[in-house]
Amino acid sequence: MARTLDPYGLSRVIRPAGVLPQAAEVLDPSLPAGPDELVIDVDHLNIDAASFKQIKDSVGAEPERIAAEIERIVSERGKMHNPVTGSGGMLIGRIREIGAAHPAREQLQPGDRIATLVSLTLTPLRLEAITKVHVDNDRVDVKGHAILFASGIWAKLPEDMADTLSLAALDVCGAPALVERAVSAGQTVLVLGSGKSGALCCAQAKDNGARVLALDISQKAVDTLVGLGLADEGIVADATKPVEVLEKISAATGGKLCDVVINCASVPRTEMGSILATKDRGRVVFFSMATSFTATALGAEGVGKDVDLLMGNGFAHGHAELTLDLLRKHPALRRHFEERFA
Amino acid sequence: MARTLDPYGLSRVIRPAGVLPQAAEVLDPSLPAGPDELVIDVDHLNIDAASFKQIKDSVGAEPERIAAEIERIVSERGKMHNPVTGSGGMLIGRIREIGAAHPAREQLQPGDRIATLVSLTLTPLRLEAITKVHVDNDRVDVKGHAILFASGIWAKLPEDMADTLSLAALDVCGAPALVERAVSAGQTVLVLGSGKSGALCCAQAKDNGARVLALDISQKAVDTLVGLGLADEGIVADATKPVEVLEKISAATGGKLCDVVINCASVPRTEMGSILATKDRGRVVFFSMATSFTATALGAEGVGKDVDLLMGNGFAHGHAELTLDLLRKHPALRRHFEERFA
Ligand SMILES: NC(=O)c1ccc[n+]([C@@H]2O[C@H](COP(=O)([O-])OP(=O)(O)OC[C@H]3O[C@@H](n4cnc5c(N)ncnc54)[C@H](OP(=O)(O)O)[C@@H]3O)[C@@H](O)[C@H]2O)c1
Ligand SMILES: NC(=O)c1ccc[n+]([C@@H]2O[C@H](COP(=O)([O-])OP(=O)(O)OC[C@H]3O[C@@H](n4cnc5c(N)ncnc54)[C@H](OP(=O)(O)O)[C@@H]3O)[C@@H](O)[C@H]2O)c1
Repeated sequence: MARTLDPYGLSRVIRPAGVLPQAAEVLDPSLPAGPDELVIDVDHLNIDAASFKQIKDSVGAEPERIAAEIERIVSERGKMHNPVTGSGGMLIGRIREIGAAHPAREQLQPGDRIATLVSLTLTPLRLEAITKVHVDNDRVDVKGHAILFASGIWAKLPEDMADTLSLAALDVCGAPALVERAVSAGQTVLVLGSGKSGALCCAQAKDNGARVLALDISQKAVDTLVGLGLADEGIVADATKPVEVLEKISAATGGKLCDVVINCASVPRTEMGSILATKDRGRVVFFSMATSFTATALGAEGVGKDVDLLMGNGFAHGHAELTLDLLRKHPALRRHFEERFA
Repeated sequence: MARTLDPYGLSRVIRPAGVLPQAAEVLDPSLPAGPDELVIDVDHLNIDAASFKQIKDSVGAEPERIAAEIERIVSERGKMHNPVTGSGGMLIGRIREIGAAHPAREQLQPGDRIATLVSLTLTPLRLEAITKVHVDNDRVDVKGHAILFASGIWAKLPEDMADTLSLAALDVCGAPALVERAVSAGQTVLVLGSGKSGALCCAQAKDNGARVLALDISQKAVDTLVGLGLADEGIVADATKPVEVLEKISAATGGKLCDVVINCASVPRTEMGSILATKDRGRVVFFSMATSFTATALGAEGVGKDVDLLMGNGFAHGHAELTLDLLRKHPALRRHFEERFA
């Protein structure tokens, strides 16, 4: 292993040479670890939904078959990176060893329980055994070790919450963290999509002192957020229909439209609705992974909308603590998460 | 035609009902115009390169065949929207009529020569004749009229420049306009791609007082920009190789990396190179239409880079004047444009 600093884990790439771990075919998970690496005793792999479904569809839903396929991928690639879907997931484990030069030297100690917030597609992994397959929530219990690079993001698992709750929030914790930066008091904010990340974004926007509009295709979803005090007004609309979104948001804002639009929808073609709902020189933050770059950049130009178009970075300093604190500050939000997403 | 205000031209959509003009199958270009519309006597259609190539490949390169195919598309759809490539282009013409309620009421008069800066894919168009096909620069001379909505962006064609020069700049004028906003004096700015938009972005970043690094795969391209005084340092690198970009930018900045990275590359998979070259809490502005949303949002998260990720909006208030003024302020840049792009 490299004796020098290797914040992006380049020395763990076996092939092809010169690429980053996420783009690599095969990674080297062997020990000892480098000076700025973390070694984790892995307890659970939370496999990405699309990846787990593809495995079930290809080898069948029997736990032994799923376990064998996961073991095959990991032994071949040195990481749990589904070659068909290209997706990974995240893991939970306990710190075994912290490199002398690792940035979290002061914050972590051996034995601490953490979740990795960087994808399994770039995490060197060696499995000794898969002890249990939880077929219906895409999760496997394992024995083995993983390596986290200095650039790798992690979060300590809180003692005051069940793993299922903290993981549901940590899965989307980049979103509220960026809302905290983007929204100022007195602004009108539209959150498109009232699901997992939508609920957190509404809560953060309210905490920032904004008037919050929650838009979703489901009446129940918006009523829930308004009922929990996380949004000031619920709007039922199909976010894939820009003309409908424009009409309903114009009505709700007396034609003034919104200072900030946060897109947390889970379906494609919601770009134009987000843009049209934004006032001139306003800002749109896209978290939806179904967002198309060209539809956004060309769409804004086509309707003459001079608005800032941000891609929702999944990482922001302190995003995990901020999101877990949101759950602590808003008991109603926490209960909602426990019931719906944990 | 609608007697009420219709800034996005919704009333000109024939089918399917309830969509925006750009998504419509067919638009209605008929007169009279609505109160907040502009009528243009069209002189030239600058067809998008991909669209013109597709037409040539399908009907052959004889001018009559190309003209007949363009006439067929326009008479069927009421706009020059290539159904295969989905792309349009822009047009040049003279103002025939300005609606009493049109926002440019004070800035334009009949007879003014303008270029539309919104795509032909959303511009109602009726052609009486195609008088000439310029097969090698994707351009046709025509007789006919077009409609510009209140939201439609236009630019007056300057008298002190040939159309070919002003159009080459207007084609990418959103890029330097956003650089003007994003870059402050004393910052280190990387412009990735030293082509048409790259040259303009370097010039604007220099005007903002930044230290400008120009990166391209071609030594000649970077030498040209440095030679013209538009960039302080040229870096030859393949922007699709993030590790190479990181090494060369680290070397060029003593490991500090860049405050702002402007991506004007014309090839896919340049997202990670752009992100890795950016310092913590820095900003990346993506103009390249080959940018992938997921590669960017997930890529930044994967390497723990807390940077702002902006999509390059093609429109910004005053973007046309700013860009034409750049050519006027920098004679060397203007000559470069005349030689290479006009
Ligand atoms: N980059 C990041 O770090 C980051 C962070 C957070 C989230 N995300 C992305 O953001 C998206 C949302 O994530 P999530 O976990 O919040 O998903 P989610 O819980 O499924 O929420 C999506 C919401 O959108 C609603 N919706 C579906 N179709 C709609 C339509 N046509 N109009 C309006 N609303 C509609 C859904 O309603 P139904 O349930 O009734 O379909 C649901 O309430 C995903 O693409 C996710 O990957 C990315
Ligand atoms: N949204 C907007 O408003 C907007 C505005 C401006 C531009 N754009 C987009 O920005 C992109 C660039 O536009 P443009 O007109 O400037 O194109 P261009 O003139 O072709 O410039 C692209 C430059 O990138 C270089 N390049 C190609 N492969 C490379 C690599 N592997 N590494 C480093 N450099 C590489 C090209 O070099 P070679 O010539 O040697 O290949 C060329 O110098 C396009 O996608 C365009 O659509 C969008």
